Amino acid sequence: MPITEALAVAQQREPQRLLRLQELLRIPSISTVVAAKPDVEQAAAWVSAYLQEIGLEHASVLETGRNPVVYADWLHAPGQPTVLCYGHYDVQPADPAELWRTPPFEPTIEGDNLIARGAADDKGQLIIHLAAVEAMLKADGRLPVNVKFIIEGEEEIGSPSLDALFDTHHDRFQADVCLISDSHMLAPDCPVIITSVRGLMALHIEVTGPHKDLHSGIFGGAVQNPIQALSTMLAQLHDADGHVTVPHFYDRVRPLTDEDRAGLAQLPFDRTAWLAEAGQPPTDWGEPGYTIVERTTSRPTLEINGFAGGFTGDGIKTVLPSRAVAKISCRLVADQDPEEIRSLLSDYLQSLAPPAVRVTIQPIQSGPGASVSRDHPAMKVASAAYKAVYGVEPLFVREGGSIPIVALLQKKFGMASLMMGFGLPDDGLHSPNEKMSLSQIRRGVATILHFFYGLRG
Amino acid sequence: MPITEALAVAQQREPQRLLRLQELLRIPSISTVVAAKPDVEQAAAWVSAYLQEIGLEHASVLETGRNPVVYADWLHAPGQPTVLCYGHYDVQPADPAELWRTPPFEPTIEGDNLIARGAADDKGQLIIHLAAVEAMLKADGRLPVNVKFIIEGEEEIGSPSLDALFDTHHDRFQADVCLISDSHMLAPDCPVIITSVRGLMALHIEVTGPHKDLHSGIFGGAVQNPIQALSTMLAQLHDADGHVTVPHFYDRVRPLTDEDRAGLAQLPFDRTAWLAEAGQPPTDWGEPGYTIVERTTSRPTLEINGFAGGFTGDGIKTVLPSRAVAKISCRLVADQDPEEIRSLLSDYLQSLAPPAVRVTIQPIQSGPGASVSRDHPAMKVASAAYKAVYGVEPLFVREGGSIPIVALLQKKFGMASLMMGFGLPDDGLHSPNEKMSLSQIRRGVATILHFFYGLRG
Repeated sequence: MPITEALAVAQQREPQRLLRLQELLRIPSISTVVAAKPDVEQAAAWVSAYLQEIGLEHASVLETGRNPVVYADWLHAPGQPTVLCYGHYDVQPADPAELWRTPPFEPTIEGDNLIARGAADDKGQLIIHLAAVEAMLKADGRLPVNVKFIIEGEEEIGSPSLDALFDTHHDRFQADVCLISDSHMLAPDCPVIITSVRGLMALHIEVTGPHKDLHSGIFGGAVQNPIQALSTMLAQLHDADGHVTVPHFYDRVRPLTDEDRAGLAQLPFDRTAWLAEAGQPPTDWGEPGYTIVERTTSRPTLEINGFAGGFTGDGIKTVLPSRAVAKISCRLVADQDPEEIRSLLSDYLQSLAPPAVRVTIQPIQSGPGASVSRDHPAMKVASAAYKAVYGVEPLFVREGGSIPIVALLQKKFGMASLMMGFGLPDDGLHSPNEKMSLSQIRRGVATILHFFYGLRG
Repeated sequence: MPITEALAVAQQREPQRLLRLQELLRIPSISTVVAAKPDVEQAAAWVSAYLQEIGLEHASVLETGRNPVVYADWLHAPGQPTVLCYGHYDVQPADPAELWRTPPFEPTIEGDNLIARGAADDKGQLIIHLAAVEAMLKADGRLPVNVKFIIEGEEEIGSPSLDALFDTHHDRFQADVCLISDSHMLAPDCPVIITSVRGLMALHIEVTGPHKDLHSGIFGGAVQNPIQALSTMLAQLHDADGHVTVPHFYDRVRPLTDEDRAGLAQLPFDRTAWLAEAGQPPTDWGEPGYTIVERTTSRPTLEINGFAGGFTGDGIKTVLPSRAVAKISCRLVADQDPEEIRSLLSDYLQSLAPPAVRVTIQPIQSGPGASVSRDHPAMKVASAAYKAVYGVEPLFVREGGSIPIVALLQKKFGMASLMMGFGLPDDGLHSPNEKMSLSQIRRGVATILHFFYGLRG
């Protein structure tokens, strides 16, 4: 079973694979939008059918309290390790829709890029695992290792159903290592393996004043405006530099060691390119005493993801609105506990609330961060796979984003996750015009093929 | 030509009048929403046709740069004064739609109340003038005085077209006094004549950071969030008590004299009922050193009418948004100049902007406040008309809201406005479930009939 044949099959199957990926990208499986449930279910059914089609067994859609999980396996390599391949078929919302150059759910190819919501996060990356498995089964009639697939529909809302699912189906998801392609490299010639992900805690805050919207000329100036009250509260979550001012927010943050900081400083980082991608004026902003790389990977943050209140259509509505809302999320590092942070932030927000308004806070989601040892045996195999395809060893990098399953697999099974992502920094994850490089998919399939064959004992 | 006959006709015509008013209320003529232009034009055509139908002459729809003005007259009372009857057929937006008990543009009668957007502001009040004129023409075949009608479609957006219209058609709108029914009484048994209206200055502010929405896990903590920046700016527009902190905001405010304050203190004001209508917790809030009546009628205010940014749908979108917007309006008193206040507020907002974001400010509308002398001869006639119908003399009251035409008529023609409103304090102007009392319409028609007959020399 030489790899050359599987590589050739993967290449031949590329046009067909691209058509199938476009089918999946056309399904607006937005997990946070309750009304998108039928689309979410359609995406799960699509994935399940495709897993079966490429030759996997026991393909099934497992119901959860919310969005289903798709499972399949191929377990005919006795004595060989078992890899749990993870991906997610759910996507972020596409708004603001007006900023997309092409419709977010009509995948469009421009040069080397496939543009669509979910192109890189994660539909275009989960297809890499499927393509590798398909190629090996077509070329060899078998796989070099055992594989199980778990492809979920709630990653973008914090994977709330996995905990109970792993309790109910504990044995089914046992494996030696989890393979995840849901992250990005530092550059097209700079592959990385992620060694930690941050946790996430999100909440919804609602500030209510008058019981209905009031005429500003009749009540304004004598009734506190919930927008003004909420703005005052939100303004006190950071100091002017960007340090989070929630009391005890940083208490459990593990300080960066000199070695950590030296390692982060050695990573290739093009400050000018980064600022250009962010598109902000070239003014430094962020927690004082830390570099951009440190702030975005190794320090906790607090972000206001949205706010709304009153009238913001054409012109003006001279209203004193009844309520104002905001969504806030924190990225957490070890050893911050999401529930403790939620409690600290909620208490602080309540303490900031002016007496003339009522404040209610609802949890949205939460999950802790996690890290993976560089000494795990699969790390070496993964490094060699990258070297074979990209010509260089991967760098070991802390990821600023959150992949909830990583901490969960560690807790439930003591299982390590190997995060081999093939996205690029300018893919625009969660942004308009999200894209995935077609050559990165191609090289991703080759890398994963090398990984699977390399893993064989 | 005794008044009894006209009063009887007005009463007979009531059922028919109510059906016609409901027709007008069904047209969603929201002036601030550009897409509602066809509805606005339909409302203008409806008003013009109705003016003609009740026997007025020269009914015409005058085009402006934006929403048309409807004109009609009856000028066959030589030697008698000419009254310019003003009203507006445009309405505020109906959102938040979910808070209406009945659809805002399907007028619904509940007991003595007619519920619809525009029921009191101003469709249900302009119909009072029309009903009085119709009754007199039907009863007498003529009117006791000359009348001209100006019914516009831009009151809720600050009447931006009237200035140029009055220049183009100067003679057509000449009159001895303007009659306006677009305000409310203090209680069903407490009629008022308004002696001043506040000015209004509104602007739109946009804060832009990154050139697109960014992933909060990749960029958060190192790129300033426009929501955070805008919140910080909005939080600095008032101090904790509600005093406006824009530098020089109060410089030109004419201080209340002891006499002013004594007069305001004598007005019937039920603090408990007022707070219940506002629906806020029973906590005092507002500019220190002033009563609620003073704050809402005689002091300038600054209100944030709306803000929006990022994602506020179901759940969470872990985004660092590209931009955040807000709408701000100020209610102004004599001698505050709207353009000066706009400039002060804009400069202050720019000075508060953190360096990592860009701030753009767009004017929306503006108009100065105005006051009317209690010594105007028509005031006595109006007082006697109220006395005849309500049994009590009206109180003279400063209005907290804004009616842009009042200052404009003063400037262009030296014309005084007689503000005889028949709304009630709980009508919910600009709020969900806006209503108009049917008995107030009935008594309003009677009062206006007394006014017209009383004005005859």
